[in-house]
Amino acid sequence: MVGVNQKVRIGMIGYQFMGKAHSHAYRDLSFYFENPLKPELTVIAGRNEEAVKEAQEKMGWKSYETDWKKVIERDDIDVIDIVTPNHTHAEIAIAAAKAGKHIITEKPLALTVEEAKEMLQAVEENGVKHMICHNYRFVPAVQYAKKLIEDNKIGRVYHYRANYLQDFIMDPNFPLVWRLKKEVSGSGALGDIGAHSIDLARFLIGEFAEVTGTMETFIKQRPVGEMTGGLNAKGDANEMGEVTVDDAALFIARFENGALGTFEATRFAGGNRNKNKFEINGEKGSIRWDMENMNNLEVYFADDEEGTQGFRLINCTEAVHPYAGAYWPPGHIIGYEHTFIHLIDEFFRGIAEDYQPAPNFDDGVKNQIILEAIEKSSENKSWVSIE
Amino acid sequence: MVGVNQKVRIGMIGYQFMGKAHSHAYRDLSFYFENPLKPELTVIAGRNEEAVKEAQEKMGWKSYETDWKKVIERDDIDVIDIVTPNHTHAEIAIAAAKAGKHIITEKPLALTVEEAKEMLQAVEENGVKHMICHNYRFVPAVQYAKKLIEDNKIGRVYHYRANYLQDFIMDPNFPLVWRLKKEVSGSGALGDIGAHSIDLARFLIGEFAEVTGTMETFIKQRPVGEMTGGLNAKGDANEMGEVTVDDAALFIARFENGALGTFEATRFAGGNRNKNKFEINGEKGSIRWDMENMNNLEVYFADDEEGTQGFRLINCTEAVHPYAGAYWPPGHIIGYEHTFIHLIDEFFRGIAEDYQPAPNFDDGVKNQIILEAIEKSSENKSWVSIE
Amino acid sequence: MVGVNQKVRIGMIGYQFMGKAHSHAYRDLSFYFENPLKPELTVIAGRNEEAVKEAQEKMGWKSYETDWKKVIERDDIDVIDIVTPNHTHAEIAIAAAKAGKHIITEKPLALTVEEAKEMLQAVEENGVKHMICHNYRFVPAVQYAKKLIEDNKIGRVYHYRANYLQDFIMDPNFPLVWRLKKEVSGSGALGDIGAHSIDLARFLIGEFAEVTGTMETFIKQRPVGEMTGGLNAKGDANEMGEVTVDDAALFIARFENGALGTFEATRFAGGNRNKNKFEINGEKGSIRWDMENMNNLEVYFADDEEGTQGFRLINCTEAVHPYAGAYWPPGHIIGYEHTFIHLIDEFFRGIAEDYQPAPNFDDGVKNQIILEAIEKSSENKSWVSIE
Amino acid sequence: MVGVNQKVRIGMIGYQFMGKAHSHAYRDLSFYFENPLKPELTVIAGRNEEAVKEAQEKMGWKSYETDWKKVIERDDIDVIDIVTPNHTHAEIAIAAAKAGKHIITEKPLALTVEEAKEMLQAVEENGVKHMICHNYRFVPAVQYAKKLIEDNKIGRVYHYRANYLQDFIMDPNFPLVWRLKKEVSGSGALGDIGAHSIDLARFLIGEFAEVTGTMETFIKQRPVGEMTGGLNAKGDANEMGEVTVDDAALFIARFENGALGTFEATRFAGGNRNKNKFEINGEKGSIRWDMENMNNLEVYFADDEEGTQGFRLINCTEAVHPYAGAYWPPGHIIGYEHTFIHLIDEFFRGIAEDYQPAPNFDDGVKNQIILEAIEKSSENKSWVSIE
Repeated sequence: MVGVNQKVRIGMIGYQFMGKAHSHAYRDLSFYFENPLKPELTVIAGRNEEAVKEAQEKMGWKSYETDWKKVIERDDIDVIDIVTPNHTHAEIAIAAAKAGKHIITEKPLALTVEEAKEMLQAVEENGVKHMICHNYRFVPAVQYAKKLIEDNKIGRVYHYRANYLQDFIMDPNFPLVWRLKKEVSGSGALGDIGAHSIDLARFLIGEFAEVTGTMETFIKQRPVGEMTGGLNAKGDANEMGEVTVDDAALFIARFENGALGTFEATRFAGGNRNKNKFEINGEKGSIRWDMENMNNLEVYFADDEEGTQGFRLINCTEAVHPYAGAYWPPGHIIGYEHTFIHLIDEFFRGIAEDYQPAPNFDDGVKNQIILEAIEKSSENKSWVSIE
Repeated sequence: MVGVNQKVRIGMIGYQFMGKAHSHAYRDLSFYFENPLKPELTVIAGRNEEAVKEAQEKMGWKSYETDWKKVIERDDIDVIDIVTPNHTHAEIAIAAAKAGKHIITEKPLALTVEEAKEMLQAVEENGVKHMICHNYRFVPAVQYAKKLIEDNKIGRVYHYRANYLQDFIMDPNFPLVWRLKKEVSGSGALGDIGAHSIDLARFLIGEFAEVTGTMETFIKQRPVGEMTGGLNAKGDANEMGEVTVDDAALFIARFENGALGTFEATRFAGGNRNKNKFEINGEKGSIRWDMENMNNLEVYFADDEEGTQGFRLINCTEAVHPYAGAYWPPGHIIGYEHTFIHLIDEFFRGIAEDYQPAPNFDDGVKNQIILEAIEKSSENKSWVSIE
Repeated sequence: MVGVNQKVRIGMIGYQFMGKAHSHAYRDLSFYFENPLKPELTVIAGRNEEAVKEAQEKMGWKSYETDWKKVIERDDIDVIDIVTPNHTHAEIAIAAAKAGKHIITEKPLALTVEEAKEMLQAVEENGVKHMICHNYRFVPAVQYAKKLIEDNKIGRVYHYRANYLQDFIMDPNFPLVWRLKKEVSGSGALGDIGAHSIDLARFLIGEFAEVTGTMETFIKQRPVGEMTGGLNAKGDANEMGEVTVDDAALFIARFENGALGTFEATRFAGGNRNKNKFEINGEKGSIRWDMENMNNLEVYFADDEEGTQGFRLINCTEAVHPYAGAYWPPGHIIGYEHTFIHLIDEFFRGIAEDYQPAPNFDDGVKNQIILEAIEKSSENKSWVSIE
Repeated sequence: MVGVNQKVRIGMIGYQFMGKAHSHAYRDLSFYFENPLKPELTVIAGRNEEAVKEAQEKMGWKSYETDWKKVIERDDIDVIDIVTPNHTHAEIAIAAAKAGKHIITEKPLALTVEEAKEMLQAVEENGVKHMICHNYRFVPAVQYAKKLIEDNKIGRVYHYRANYLQDFIMDPNFPLVWRLKKEVSGSGALGDIGAHSIDLARFLIGEFAEVTGTMETFIKQRPVGEMTGGLNAKGDANEMGEVTVDDAALFIARFENGALGTFEATRFAGGNRNKNKFEINGEKGSIRWDMENMNNLEVYFADDEEGTQGFRLINCTEAVHPYAGAYWPPGHIIGYEHTFIHLIDEFFRGIAEDYQPAPNFDDGVKNQIILEAIEKSSENKSWVSIE
């Protein structure tokens, strides 16, 4: 299927927040990067015809469908992109795999490990490329952190310290959107944002060995309202429904390489809109990163001359920093949306050059195993080994 | 010409750094914003056929020309976008105005006040819309600063303090690119980056009354090399040529409203890749902003309760912040390129709704008058009034 | 014993790092504060005569002793100050209590909960005032954080997040000083610095309900060297000894008020010399503090006007901030040593006005109970309730 | 007169803000430093007997006088310390010099260059040691910046950029204290805080060649009130008097070594309590410092490996940093008052080892010449050469 400048025809299922982020990435990919493949925004699908049509026009898709199955059936589609609520990922992905489509899906991969494994089996059996959208791996500063670690600039890792802090549901009147219902989303802060922290940790320092944690739902009932609403969703205060996911999840981990980790994912940290941060302490150096200033990386080298030691504030916008050279001169920052461009660039390279890009469904399964271990740990009040 | 969803056909003259930024803005405008007009990337022009053709394909333009005059002659062009070196702005803009095209041009408007005034006269006589790309006005945080000032949250302004610090030509082996030759660029740091600081000051707190300043060229000779090169240009060390523009310009200003200003524009501030920053101190509050963390605005209110006073670090990514609502949830930052989308959005609204958007050629003239006053002041070692 | 400007005669046992900090506090107290009592530096004790004599002269003590029991026997001593290694606290404190002396001791109170309780019983039975040096409570910014919480500016607390990060023993050649031997110090990072984090959490948001954690010794053997050495101690590489305390301790907590806490204490976080920090997220606001910039407090109020919300950087050097008015005009910062002056001020007020100041031995016992619970949790890999 | 551990008997004229800072320094010097001389707080003088007596007791002076001339006449005084309002410095210093006393005085040295030169002549003719309290030189981070420059880590200096921003008189009801009357203080923001910026620039990068600047008084009339009041002074709103000094002063400078400087001193920068900051850009590196975080130094080295370049945040609290080793372990910060201890340490070493310490009256004269040049420049709207 692939070759230089060949088209990749995309069928995207879903069209909200993540649909917008992915659509944009397809549109901008070739503008910035020399990818062998050129995405074509072929079809976008959603159940609400009016809404999906509006999305189609606004975001530049050639056509729309109201039944996702039709998208998978279409011959003119090479890639299925899944940006629907979590409980639908498995069915769609498995169908897409069987239809021989390459697949990119939002995280978490599925609601359960079992589901996730079925998905992985499906893509492997059908020999398609697959990817899961842990987009934060693709921030240039994060990629550069990875490079520093691989180049042995940090040495043996002692500590990994991650927070993913948000505050968008702190108002008790914020309604019971789908992200707050377990049957649709699987879990709350843990699976939505904690999953990103887990992925970054795995990417940067390696596999988890065991975890212990706790989860909490601070606001247990909320107004039933717009189920599809985003941040500005309004509830109906007359009817209340039960929140069935966690508002916050905390856990401690031990990694296979002996490092210790602390993690916290919460939607109840006022003033933190999207504070996804990590710190790494190793034998030879330390690294700090924070998504709210995503272009910057703070790095400490223990070998710097005495007296001049200190965290360096590196603006990762230079040609030497991964992906950054495709954009603007140094000091001209990029934003959140660019992470998706880089992820798509990697996905398409995998398709074009026939290798399995990462993070993929295998990462999704491993992530889900850790999520499930944390949930189990929280219930049992014990440590849980990661198989 | 205009109406809802009508197309605006763009002819862009030039295709390098700014050509890329503008092209991207045209591509993304309708994706994010509900602008009544839809840009069409009709033709891109440049003298080097191979290079302009590559740019055309890479950036998605429908056609290319090697003679800019042909672009202006074409009937299927509504807007001329000028992203060529500074010494060509006047001729192109005047021709475009006479052809009845709306015009958007990079800054500075021209090499001299005289030229700039001719350009203004041309656009006014021909009744076309015109805009100059002082894109930093269009950062959401800067727009929000403007709003705070207009809402009288800062009160009488006492101080404006601006630095625009870069370091890309500090290496004495960096070659004599066009930006370092007066006959092509008009001036050095002053016109290239100081002009941005002047525009932000005018936008935020008002008109200059008088200035005094000094300019310096630290490295007076450089290798003659690639004249068109950007940051990675390489010189030929065997032949040296004279740098005829300033490496740094410093000046003090008094504003019509009684405020005092200090300004510094330099390409010799190591470690500052693109530090465009300002601070405003007023009777009721203060504001600080820095392009390297462009999504943040620091604001101090003197009326805050005693004990809790302090600069607030505002991440201007919420729906209430200008332009920010078009993007992602709060805390998901945008980057440099987005400033151009906002500028184009304003430009097209001006065309569609028949008002003259800003900053425009009149701002360009006023900016040029100030630049020239600073140069005169530097020569004469005196204060110069702004007419 | 007490009255305005009456003298309090101090006998200090020990003379190293903490001895210096306490001595300085006694010297400076009356200079800055209107305390009813005036400390007199009567006697300092240590086993090494040469060293204690040097300390006596350098720090301004009137006399010295080489046997701490003599200090307690002396009639001219009102207060015993214990700054010796941890394993000696109990014996000295109990003897001092029996002799009717008021007691101030360094933390942790003792090596075990049992010992700590005996100490508490002794001071209570003998009716003396007692204090434990959790000096970080006395930073003006921390006191102000406490005030904001008490004034209900933060509301129901959801999260407490503490790190105490150091790096002074990361070099494997750093010797086996007393702080690394369990029989002398009780524990490692946990008791030395984690104990401070526990105290701050108790002070600011209330009592712990249960904990689970893990501890690790990264470098298990070190050169046997100067046992008494501080940061610059040198080891003897020919002989190695076993490190019997933790290099790092991590734990999760649930508080009685329902808040969740994450804690990390480590001496293996390169680039962090003494990073003692906490964050609090509540219903109405958030607070952040970091000892490395101890004069600053970052505070977020959810009720701030939309658009202007953000963490305020408050420099707690104004008259309205606790203790700060005694020093310099706003913006002129104070340092680490001042925390001890404030602690002593509180201690002496307790003596003068006959109330029991805090933190005291009761806090020490509660702290020790938590430390022991974490150790037990780490061993058993389970949650442990705090009685 | 001098030898190891010999006493130096101090007579201090004045007892307010600076009197407190100096008194504290004398008290703490021997506690922290191995200075060959030991200060004795012999006599403090002030016209208001009640107030000076209270100061004497509070700060630990042995005696007091209400006539400064008596202090100078006393045989038991070795050093005269002048902390009175500026217009009295000259008379006192000249008398002290004639009496053979070593002299330390607050800045600015005098009201005029002429006065300053007479003072310098007096100390030189009488062979006494002399010092002026530009205490900011003595911050460890600033001393370390000096060392980096001397060690050629920064290379040829291109830019010096200084702000000294305060906000304590922004309220129009703040009364007409002595600092706002020219006949007492000489000048306003310029001489009070701008003088510090000038001294730091001279200390760090060398002598001024020429300056141009402007000065402004934003609030021209204020309530007549407590003339001696500090920050909390209250005015009497019924009677207004004229402010005869500048509220703000801005200037540009050229240095003898070719560097360019921008300076701003103002008391009208809301939210900046005492923001004394500078930035230096050189050929090989850059330095940034800010008094509000005085223990930190930000340093950029152009030679750092590509990709890892960035400002390092150095906490100057290690043994390798000047003066820092005398205090606490790394990461335990010191404050404003410590700058005076270091300055006194240098002063006494000069006395003990018979060399002339700096900054001294010669620096005071040079500083005054620059201040006067700026005032002249502001009046004449021209550049003024520094002789």
